[in-house]
Amino acid sequence: MISNTYPQTFLELPLSRDAGAAPLQRQLHARLQAAILGGKLPAGTCLPGSRALATTLGIARNTVTAVYEQLAVEGYVLAQRQGTQVAPQWHGDTAAPAPPCVLAQRMQQFAPLRTALSYRPAALRPGEPALSQFPLAAWRRALDLAYRDGSAAAALAYGEPAGEPALRAAISRYLAVARGVSCRAEQIIITEGAQEALTLCVRLLTNPGDTAWVEDPGYRGAKAAMQAGDLSMLPMRVDGHGLSATPEDWREYPPRLVYITPAHQYPLGAVLPVPRRLQLIEAARAHGAWLIEDDYDSEFRHAGEPVAAMQGLAGDGPVLYVGTFSKTMFPALRLGFLVLPPALLAAAQAPLVAMLRGGHRHEQLAMAHFIDSGQYARHLGRMRRLYRARQQALREALARQFDVPHTVEGGHCGMHLTVRLPPAFPDHVIAAAAQAYGMAVSPLSGFSLAPREEDNGLVIGYGNTAPELYGSLLGRLAMLARQASKV
Amino acid sequence: MISNTYPQTFLELPLSRDAGAAPLQRQLHARLQAAILGGKLPAGTCLPGSRALATTLGIARNTVTAVYEQLAVEGYVLAQRQGTQVAPQWHGDTAAPAPPCVLAQRMQQFAPLRTALSYRPAALRPGEPALSQFPLAAWRRALDLAYRDGSAAAALAYGEPAGEPALRAAISRYLAVARGVSCRAEQIIITEGAQEALTLCVRLLTNPGDTAWVEDPGYRGAKAAMQAGDLSMLPMRVDGHGLSATPEDWREYPPRLVYITPAHQYPLGAVLPVPRRLQLIEAARAHGAWLIEDDYDSEFRHAGEPVAAMQGLAGDGPVLYVGTFSKTMFPALRLGFLVLPPALLAAAQAPLVAMLRGGHRHEQLAMAHFIDSGQYARHLGRMRRLYRARQQALREALARQFDVPHTVEGGHCGMHLTVRLPPAFPDHVIAAAAQAYGMAVSPLSGFSLAPREEDNGLVIGYGNTAPELYGSLLGRLAMLARQASKV
Repeated sequence: MISNTYPQTFLELPLSRDAGAAPLQRQLHARLQAAILGGKLPAGTCLPGSRALATTLGIARNTVTAVYEQLAVEGYVLAQRQGTQVAPQWHGDTAAPAPPCVLAQRMQQFAPLRTALSYRPAALRPGEPALSQFPLAAWRRALDLAYRDGSAAAALAYGEPAGEPALRAAISRYLAVARGVSCRAEQIIITEGAQEALTLCVRLLTNPGDTAWVEDPGYRGAKAAMQAGDLSMLPMRVDGHGLSATPEDWREYPPRLVYITPAHQYPLGAVLPVPRRLQLIEAARAHGAWLIEDDYDSEFRHAGEPVAAMQGLAGDGPVLYVGTFSKTMFPALRLGFLVLPPALLAAAQAPLVAMLRGGHRHEQLAMAHFIDSGQYARHLGRMRRLYRARQQALREALARQFDVPHTVEGGHCGMHLTVRLPPAFPDHVIAAAAQAYGMAVSPLSGFSLAPREEDNGLVIGYGNTAPELYGSLLGRLAMLARQASKV
Repeated sequence: MISNTYPQTFLELPLSRDAGAAPLQRQLHARLQAAILGGKLPAGTCLPGSRALATTLGIARNTVTAVYEQLAVEGYVLAQRQGTQVAPQWHGDTAAPAPPCVLAQRMQQFAPLRTALSYRPAALRPGEPALSQFPLAAWRRALDLAYRDGSAAAALAYGEPAGEPALRAAISRYLAVARGVSCRAEQIIITEGAQEALTLCVRLLTNPGDTAWVEDPGYRGAKAAMQAGDLSMLPMRVDGHGLSATPEDWREYPPRLVYITPAHQYPLGAVLPVPRRLQLIEAARAHGAWLIEDDYDSEFRHAGEPVAAMQGLAGDGPVLYVGTFSKTMFPALRLGFLVLPPALLAAAQAPLVAMLRGGHRHEQLAMAHFIDSGQYARHLGRMRRLYRARQQALREALARQFDVPHTVEGGHCGMHLTVRLPPAFPDHVIAAAAQAYGMAVSPLSGFSLAPREEDNGLVIGYGNTAPELYGSLLGRLAMLARQASKV
């Protein structure tokens, strides 16, 4: 059984049966106690039923009930009529109070926030492009054109739910040339960034409780969309060549959706090799699964030949392609798209009309003009050179100033590098401390549903930060890492 | 039991037990047969379990199984291991082919489309404002200001997930004065129109299978959001004073969400009187339910004093207020908002950060400027006078040119009138025929989950259509109505 509440997936990792290991009961008790004290299981969380957890772990049910009873005696949990629930904890060393149980169950699984609902500019933020280099004047001219057009007043109305035909056509031409994606304009649905595209995949294709495979470590936005859709997420380990799935995985945990970042695994940076791509497509066909290909930043390739999109390999196959202009243009544009396979097109019409409203038509018309006039391609070329230089500078600064044991992952593509750290340097602590110095590096362990020792490190974005700052920022990060290792 | 698939709610209407009525078995058979032939139950739909349906209808289970067996023999349904499923129908007189079963179950419940995924401008479309009168030049100046601001480049980045603080503050001030809504800026979440606000309510507050009350007839967008969230919708009849719920309703079908349009019931136009508002608030408090107040067009009040929002009556109570700029500004702006009650604010932070991305920051800053500079209030005043005149003209044209028996509903507010027709004039047929003449009037029966004889009529928008056209358009509509009555 797989939990549909992703922060609880760690509960289902196998217990150690090594000769020297502690008794199973003590291992399980320690795991739950640590999770409750550490805030991983906030107050009000319902623990899995003892029978289900025993089956998952392959241990006796008695062992689970004994652990639950012990935790109840210790005050960590409450034995309720409906099941065992985590009790309110009063030691108060976790940052946020547990939310009251007014929310939907799935909503209570989002990790409590350590910060308010606010946004502060910060250096080294992964996924944020070089906004100071964005050709704002050219973009405003494209917008002006859309607003001066004879049909500008007509474009104030509701538009096609799938977005402006001119933009869909421009994207389909661009994708064919730049990404090897094979599609007609009618297959393209314009969305509010990649996030709405992922939400649409979940809504269109899954029922509550369906299984979805996610890369582990992997993109959190995809997990949020699946969480909001009541899916059971199965973390699939990522190696140096991306997601790896065996025939046994397909047999034992057949997924309805598989989320992948084949061009540039997020955040580790692997490229999924063609044989693995073909295997995934074939297995998905055989099992009636759908592959979601998130191609979020492959435009910025820094080494070797471009890798074409998986979608182009699949023909009318089971691939839904997700793209975004958040990285190539700017995040606040909130413009992304979903390429539906032809097989889904007819069936999806009625749900899409019911759920989508079109809109932002002048922005979409401006974007179409930006692409068709060649300005988009020129902007991408400039940014590719800029990011390549920034990545090189960041690598050098890591080698010179980040004098903490580390290895660098990925880097053939995109706007970030991932640095692995030994477990003695806890990534959450370093990232939290770095905030105070205006840095928004992300802890690698936060990208994992079931973090292992090796999932410790920092995801460092170089897109939005000028190279002159790298030396001092990385020197500061190294200092914070050394401080964190001493606590 | 209530079905969670709203087009199936008609299955659960009581059978007639009058002395002269057909036997129950024959009534049920006729109902199912008509629904399958008419496309209400498309191929692949799973019928309710015989036990559940028997309980709902208060009839013997044998009766239901006998009907299912008969339908199977006749080829209407397939008796599958998982249950009884509607078989593919080949007579082909319904417009759209049944979608293959690749979609999520809930997605197959959206009525099949008779038109493609496209949008054509049309007269008399409900909900579309007078776009030719929109002050486009003033709006472009406000946008220019936002783009010329010193922080224009910074506003290209991801912003606060809940939206620009300046706009949230401007809306909170506006709502206090214009709508009697009592809230701080922090309670306001900027959304992609009202539709995303409704989706957020469903996601934040409900689990799959929860019960939601919807006005019947009522707004389809709210039902789409609930359908996508796997809710069980209970249609609540609307009388001349809006939604009417008895203590028995609250006891027997306690809802988790109640969707209401108290200022201007959509589409019938009633105002929910204060005693009913207070009763709803009190009952919702007692039953742990949440009220969603959709205040979509109350700015355009044409008669009497403005009616303040329900939210202001509830204090920290169980009301989530939904507003939109789609009617007051323009639909393609896709700008709406949700006012969360203070009790939800802390708990909702983490889910909102996980699901929302902010964005469209220049547009939001422009909107804030438009409100704060007084241009928004002036625009509303102009539009109010315009719509008042258009409504008067439409009433006169109805009286003069629409020479078919009818009664006019509502009209104290907004941009539409609803005209009831005798059952001999089938509204779907008239509305479909009107499309060919460039009119987008909506059939009243389409707003109902369980349409009754009286739910037959036309929802006519006057916002987007100049009064000089009303005479000829309504003459044409009357002709189409007479033709439809003869088929």
